[in-house]
Amino acid sequence: MARRLVIIGGDAAGMTAAAQARRMVSADELEILAFERGSRTSYAACGLPYLIGGLVEAPADLVARTPEEHRAKGIDVRIRHEVTAIDTQTATVTVRNLDTGQESVTHYDELLIATGASGITPPWPGIDAEGVLQLRTLADAAKVEQALAAGTRHAVVVGAGYIGLEVAENLLARGLAVSVIEKLDAPMGAVLDADMAVAVTDAMRSAGIDLRLGTSVTGFTVSDGRVTAVETEAGPVKANLVVIGLGVRANSELARAAGIAVGESGGIIVDDHLRTGAPHVWAAGDCVESRHRITGRGVVLALGTHANKQGRCAGTNIAGGEATFGGVLGTAITKFKHLEIARTGLTEREAAAAGLDAFAEITEASSRAGYYPGAQSMRVKVVAERQTGRLLGAQIVGGEDAGKRIDVLATALWNGMTVHEMSGMDLSYAPPFSPVWDPVLLAAGKAASKL
Amino acid sequence: MARRLVIIGGDAAGMTAAAQARRMVSADELEILAFERGSRTSYAACGLPYLIGGLVEAPADLVARTPEEHRAKGIDVRIRHEVTAIDTQTATVTVRNLDTGQESVTHYDELLIATGASGITPPWPGIDAEGVLQLRTLADAAKVEQALAAGTRHAVVVGAGYIGLEVAENLLARGLAVSVIEKLDAPMGAVLDADMAVAVTDAMRSAGIDLRLGTSVTGFTVSDGRVTAVETEAGPVKANLVVIGLGVRANSELARAAGIAVGESGGIIVDDHLRTGAPHVWAAGDCVESRHRITGRGVVLALGTHANKQGRCAGTNIAGGEATFGGVLGTAITKFKHLEIARTGLTEREAAAAGLDAFAEITEASSRAGYYPGAQSMRVKVVAERQTGRLLGAQIVGGEDAGKRIDVLATALWNGMTVHEMSGMDLSYAPPFSPVWDPVLLAAGKAASKL
Repeated sequence: MARRLVIIGGDAAGMTAAAQARRMVSADELEILAFERGSRTSYAACGLPYLIGGLVEAPADLVARTPEEHRAKGIDVRIRHEVTAIDTQTATVTVRNLDTGQESVTHYDELLIATGASGITPPWPGIDAEGVLQLRTLADAAKVEQALAAGTRHAVVVGAGYIGLEVAENLLARGLAVSVIEKLDAPMGAVLDADMAVAVTDAMRSAGIDLRLGTSVTGFTVSDGRVTAVETEAGPVKANLVVIGLGVRANSELARAAGIAVGESGGIIVDDHLRTGAPHVWAAGDCVESRHRITGRGVVLALGTHANKQGRCAGTNIAGGEATFGGVLGTAITKFKHLEIARTGLTEREAAAAGLDAFAEITEASSRAGYYPGAQSMRVKVVAERQTGRLLGAQIVGGEDAGKRIDVLATALWNGMTVHEMSGMDLSYAPPFSPVWDPVLLAAGKAASKL
Repeated sequence: MARRLVIIGGDAAGMTAAAQARRMVSADELEILAFERGSRTSYAACGLPYLIGGLVEAPADLVARTPEEHRAKGIDVRIRHEVTAIDTQTATVTVRNLDTGQESVTHYDELLIATGASGITPPWPGIDAEGVLQLRTLADAAKVEQALAAGTRHAVVVGAGYIGLEVAENLLARGLAVSVIEKLDAPMGAVLDADMAVAVTDAMRSAGIDLRLGTSVTGFTVSDGRVTAVETEAGPVKANLVVIGLGVRANSELARAAGIAVGESGGIIVDDHLRTGAPHVWAAGDCVESRHRITGRGVVLALGTHANKQGRCAGTNIAGGEATFGGVLGTAITKFKHLEIARTGLTEREAAAAGLDAFAEITEASSRAGYYPGAQSMRVKVVAERQTGRLLGAQIVGGEDAGKRIDVLATALWNGMTVHEMSGMDLSYAPPFSPVWDPVLLAAGKAASKL
């Protein structure tokens, strides 16, 4: 008889694991049963801002694989089925059919928890009003579309992080008046040091966004059940549509209730094979905490790229293969209009908080040879350890072709390189692509010269 | 009394060394005297194709620093002065003033040979005819401009390597009929494996270039001292302008004549501090052979990025500092119209020639999330060692944002990573910048799956 793999969550981590296990082991040996409480599987949440902006044409474009397509590949997906309990003693899960309300108990030989993450929702008065939402699902995007169709003119985005920037840009593209309210004194406060965030502030304001920094939200004004304003310590801001972008927390309650260890970060604790503390129970994706390669600490980083890698890794191990997840660097990238924003490793502030003796250097550089048309300027900030010169992190803010250079720094960081050695690397050069000293070499060299 | 540093050659390597030494040591301690046989210093030869194409407006845009500017920085530059001999016994050089013909002998305490490279000029009948040239100097570019002003309509480029492609693209942009004649069966034969060059062939022909592969030049038809056709084994090709782009050889004769060791590659042999075999004699830039980090062999790679790094390294050491040059990977990039072409490390063919047990995988990938507008396709070829999975090299051919990804692979290669480890790296992801699996991760993962 076939062993049974039960997967909780039908998105990136869960379905990547399912597909990987299916590739390795036939249905005769391994039955794969995935429960998804929503109505969709495998969709690209990262594309939602661009869907509401109109750059992505149809919701279906964001669905990588439908439940039917998974079933055709030999993966039994049950949508609108929520797992309400895990019993690691009997190796069973309790599942509720959300359409019928019926509950059933299902046995597993292997269990993968891939429950994802949820947007943080502060207990602000009025947060349940119509017109206040998160942008986490296609249903959320549909609500934005309805609000626009109903003639919404004033939008407020709460939080100037990744999602805040992306939503603000796309609502602006739809012709709305957009305010962004941020508690900290700079946008991208969890991403960039303040000295690198200045360009983001400038770009947002130049684009016409009413950016309110150092401003705390206290609640919402609601009329007939609909939001009409965001209340802040500095007074109200008119809004018919509010998008909350305050980051996420791991969906680890189900695991915690089953006695599976959850870390201080709120993510499920897993080893490098993505095993939880319970036998035959694995976890992957936004619901786990990952090891940060520089600090060694457990962190929750809800990002599709980690979810996919972890899904593949868990699927391989569950299928009897051997794979490890190497940890994270906190590499990330986004853009606001033409401004590209990227980071990897630790910011200067994070390095100090981690107790590292770090220093930082900012380098102004050009994306191309100065004489070649279209050269864009960028700022590269390198954070390194004072005694050894070991790279600890980097940030890039600049024009076209700036952002993806972070991957070179991430690769150097992954390998534990010093800024001195980095400055001598053999990177590609031709006038349309970089100055003779690529910005990465220039930044590493400048940092090395300060050692 | 100040010690004297004599530099032979006033371009990238020589003048970077001069500037670096000047920053570290004052003129009271170190006199810096540079001899340049041409009329210019520190100009960007890599920009010459774009100057003739009109993308770069004026020759002066390519001059990073004039002789006057160097002098203002305390570096005594003598243009139109050619060093004709080095005597390492007496520590002197013989210098000829090319304007007056006068020769003099100058003592050095330290000598840096930075004589660069020259274009390869086969002994084809008619190669000295008017209208046949290399594109190595601003004077060459001026000759092209004169030919265009005189109404030249038919250009032939001999050689489909970097310079051939760049010149062909730019002459095409000026409205000429352009033929490219290449001895090998594919363009970029020294750069790409044949299976990666197909896209280059297609792009050249689609752009309207008459690309003649597998065709050997035998000479030139000359009328009244001017070229009228290129003769090939397959018949004549009409031409009023011929640009030879067959690569370069190191200018190492002066060193060789002085008894300084020159390698099989034709480049001057230097250690990792850029010392030659003779006391107090250093060499840097296109005239030296560099250690290839993968094969361990000495190679001549005439590229501004190496010349600059070596110049800085030599300048530091000459000034009493401590710097080493870490070797090369053969990383390079160029473009033809919208097609980006890049490579690092060894091609499959080069790996086999080096006696390595290598395998290769080609991956088709997209520059952005598939649903995000403007996604461009690319092909990434990864060459790895069969037993260990160690990366040996990579090639990328594709649309916008494809080429510079080579730097991630070059950084991985520099660190001796395996394709398996590479496939788990934390690279940046957001829909406008990459699919959830960046092409580099995808390519490394596909190669790892074949181990």
